[in-house]
Amino acid sequence: MSDTNGAFVRNAWYPAAWADEITREPFSRTLLSEPVLLYRTEEGDPVALEDRCCHKFLPLSKGVIKGDNVVCGYHGMTYDPSGACVRIPGQERIPENARVRSYPVVEHLGLIWFWAGEAPADKAKLFQLPQYGAPGWGVNHGPYTHVGAHYQQVTDNLLDPAHVSFVHLSTLGSEDMEDIPVETKQLDNCVEVNRWTLDKTPVPIFQKFADFEGNVDRWQYYYFYPPSVNVVDFGAGEVGMGHGDEERDNWVRIHSCHYMCPETERSTHYFWMQVRNFAAEDDSVSDEITAQFVMAFDEDKEILEAVQAATDAGTPRPSLKLAIDNGPSRSRRMVDRLLREEAAQHAEAAE
Amino acid sequence: MSDTNGAFVRNAWYPAAWADEITREPFSRTLLSEPVLLYRTEEGDPVALEDRCCHKFLPLSKGVIKGDNVVCGYHGMTYDPSGACVRIPGQERIPENARVRSYPVVEHLGLIWFWAGEAPADKAKLFQLPQYGAPGWGVNHGPYTHVGAHYQQVTDNLLDPAHVSFVHLSTLGSEDMEDIPVETKQLDNCVEVNRWTLDKTPVPIFQKFADFEGNVDRWQYYYFYPPSVNVVDFGAGEVGMGHGDEERDNWVRIHSCHYMCPETERSTHYFWMQVRNFAAEDDSVSDEITAQFVMAFDEDKEILEAVQAATDAGTPRPSLKLAIDNGPSRSRRMVDRLLREEAAQHAEAAE
Amino acid sequence: MSDTNGAFVRNAWYPAAWADEITREPFSRTLLSEPVLLYRTEEGDPVALEDRCCHKFLPLSKGVIKGDNVVCGYHGMTYDPSGACVRIPGQERIPENARVRSYPVVEHLGLIWFWAGEAPADKAKLFQLPQYGAPGWGVNHGPYTHVGAHYQQVTDNLLDPAHVSFVHLSTLGSEDMEDIPVETKQLDNCVEVNRWTLDKTPVPIFQKFADFEGNVDRWQYYYFYPPSVNVVDFGAGEVGMGHGDEERDNWVRIHSCHYMCPETERSTHYFWMQVRNFAAEDDSVSDEITAQFVMAFDEDKEILEAVQAATDAGTPRPSLKLAIDNGPSRSRRMVDRLLREEAAQHAEAAE
Repeated sequence: MSDTNGAFVRNAWYPAAWADEITREPFSRTLLSEPVLLYRTEEGDPVALEDRCCHKFLPLSKGVIKGDNVVCGYHGMTYDPSGACVRIPGQERIPENARVRSYPVVEHLGLIWFWAGEAPADKAKLFQLPQYGAPGWGVNHGPYTHVGAHYQQVTDNLLDPAHVSFVHLSTLGSEDMEDIPVETKQLDNCVEVNRWTLDKTPVPIFQKFADFEGNVDRWQYYYFYPPSVNVVDFGAGEVGMGHGDEERDNWVRIHSCHYMCPETERSTHYFWMQVRNFAAEDDSVSDEITAQFVMAFDEDKEILEAVQAATDAGTPRPSLKLAIDNGPSRSRRMVDRLLREEAAQHAEAAE
Repeated sequence: MSDTNGAFVRNAWYPAAWADEITREPFSRTLLSEPVLLYRTEEGDPVALEDRCCHKFLPLSKGVIKGDNVVCGYHGMTYDPSGACVRIPGQERIPENARVRSYPVVEHLGLIWFWAGEAPADKAKLFQLPQYGAPGWGVNHGPYTHVGAHYQQVTDNLLDPAHVSFVHLSTLGSEDMEDIPVETKQLDNCVEVNRWTLDKTPVPIFQKFADFEGNVDRWQYYYFYPPSVNVVDFGAGEVGMGHGDEERDNWVRIHSCHYMCPETERSTHYFWMQVRNFAAEDDSVSDEITAQFVMAFDEDKEILEAVQAATDAGTPRPSLKLAIDNGPSRSRRMVDRLLREEAAQHAEAAE
Repeated sequence: MSDTNGAFVRNAWYPAAWADEITREPFSRTLLSEPVLLYRTEEGDPVALEDRCCHKFLPLSKGVIKGDNVVCGYHGMTYDPSGACVRIPGQERIPENARVRSYPVVEHLGLIWFWAGEAPADKAKLFQLPQYGAPGWGVNHGPYTHVGAHYQQVTDNLLDPAHVSFVHLSTLGSEDMEDIPVETKQLDNCVEVNRWTLDKTPVPIFQKFADFEGNVDRWQYYYFYPPSVNVVDFGAGEVGMGHGDEERDNWVRIHSCHYMCPETERSTHYFWMQVRNFAAEDDSVSDEITAQFVMAFDEDKEILEAVQAATDAGTPRPSLKLAIDNGPSRSRRMVDRLLREEAAQHAEAAE
């Protein structure tokens, strides 16, 4: 664990919910250890407020939405989307500190994202996925998934090709890849880990969706964008195919995108989707890919929660670092750097 | 929270159980964070003992009642109603410190009350309800109710007319009252909060039991008797009726009485009854009132437990005080004064 | 509680599991607060390893057994029965500290025993039961039993004839014995507590299996072998029978043997068996004795767990010591002496 263990990067966009989870009914979710109320205004704009009345601390999600505002279910204190209290029944004067925290929110990629920090929300920092909704690309996404483990266990796992052969034998893995080393690169804004498995039989998921005869070259490119987005670009093509980004588009290719939000220090909200360059309009293919990944992520979830439980129980010595930890170690250093920057900004602002 | 948060007033009578909960079988309940055994002697007198054998700490409630005594279920140590051990099987001599604590108990208003303090039990301090059993007055009472919140959250809530419009719309409340301010009075032995709602339609509960044509004047008088009894006197009469105590007896009137006992610092035993000046002998009316209040108190329970959970989770700033908190704030000051008096007596006794 | 409360004697054999619980499938059990993996090699030898991969701490019991080794279910790190890592997929060099703890194990008396300490495992310290498998002696044993109480609550209870009259009236006890004092002896390697109940009706369990006419002399000899083995030698013979060890073999006699292993500081793994000198080959008698003891130990379990819960809740004063606590007090002193010896050896080794 890092020396900034326990803190979360705050000046970042995190996924709070699938867009269709948020309606005109109050919806409560713990995000970065804080209770958050989510709902939509009459116009349909998402709103995120501290889910805790400033009077008696009742969750505002126990109240009702009235117009664009939320009315507390205990004494009727009413808050607008900025978090300002606009009515206290039985009392004329509204004190200045009668307010709750409001979080910037945007709807993007079928998700509601919120900005957790004190610094102004920066839309340039939103994760971009150009293939989402682009012609020739199909999209599928999973259900809301809860993982009882620290979000960095999840991001580590998604930058870790080595576990695939052992955790996902039934879906994504194959024994062929067990001993193939991975290449790790530090890029400006992300960590990349990649592995090519040459001249082997295709793994089960591609046996379903492509028409290979005999062996294939298979690639996996894992990317980690701090603090909590992972993308896995994977696919397969004919033996001897070129390895460049554009050349991979000529074969069956999936960008598997993973957006995490810490719930607490030992649990994570997990949202995932795949974009693919084949059978783009075929809903049954979408459903089949989703079903495969639900199975695979259930396998991950079991392992990650067991690791979290073992860590919580206390361990007699630190984790032994292996060669395969190069990528995750780099990604934790990137997150640590962000945490130190935020701590420095915070100290500066306090002077 | 007060500066004496966590302590309980001890030199007071608290309700331990409904009278019919206590029989010749051992009954265990945690009262003021202490395990208490309740049972009846052969004559039917209630007994309250520390529910913890002085030998191995087994709850005595795991044993059996034999005559007027309780026999521990582990090694047969036998205690009489004063808490003295009167038999140790296999051993002649009974050490002087072979005893458990005994609490004074009385049966009163259909409840078993116990005196939690070190000072001599003072029957003059028992809460009196002259209408209970008096001619012309009907009585109904609820089931034993458990609330997962500090007892002062419960007593605050019962001195708080403002929540009725928001928590109890379906039973006791109406939107008409939302903005009517309350009057708060500090009396010698209690806090009074009252509110008159003039010339409005009767609330659902009185629509059932009185035959009003058109609007009514409606009163609510809330009383808090420290440490943990609340009474709500409420009713409705013709528009323009007199406001005095005797004049209210001319109309439909209910004294709703609430007796609380702390279980722990975050949970409360809650006993309630109503006495009414109409349909006194009609059991179906008793049942109907009970049913209405069961519904209403379930609504309170949900809110109070959510407030307790939010408080336990930790809050970033203190509760914002509103005008409606005047009554509860006074009641907490009364309790704090009692706690300071007890602390002073305790210190004096220790010198 | 002793001044060494919380620590466990480590240089000792503890029962980990019934022999038939351990197979070629990974089996996990917490022993002395440590996670332990148990399995058998291809030859059938039992293996006990720390159930925690040294990489990410995943329990190895989530992995698979391959030959004599266990393969971690996360990244395939493979450990042999000595705890040494023999394979790291994707990495040539295996670091020296890539290992988990291995515990000495033996199969004995139908149980798997493990040595919990740092000192060399000493087979001479295994508990011996010569009647086990000897001609003329029948054996029965209970199922694996979990008790939610500190193991010393269990060992105390098994050196305590006095509780039998109150906890086990339906099976082993009788009111006749309530006031008969016990004799306690400190022997070299154990504590003995015994009691003779002369010229009384036989207790239910012997009414079933012997053909007594009228009263009997009944004996109970309780032995505690530190840290956690208890034996109860009990039986009945004709009134006036001799009291010596050999003379007791002439009558119906049962050695009831109890092997405990601390799971945590508030829970215990409990294994028990009886050897008897009657109806040795009759399986229906074995079944009947087992059924009787299952009933009796369920009675103990309820009491012991209630005592543990009461102790955990906190008590206002220490346990009152009675005459019947002489045996348990001696046994705790024996365990405390072992703990002090181990602490001294540990300090010496550290110099």
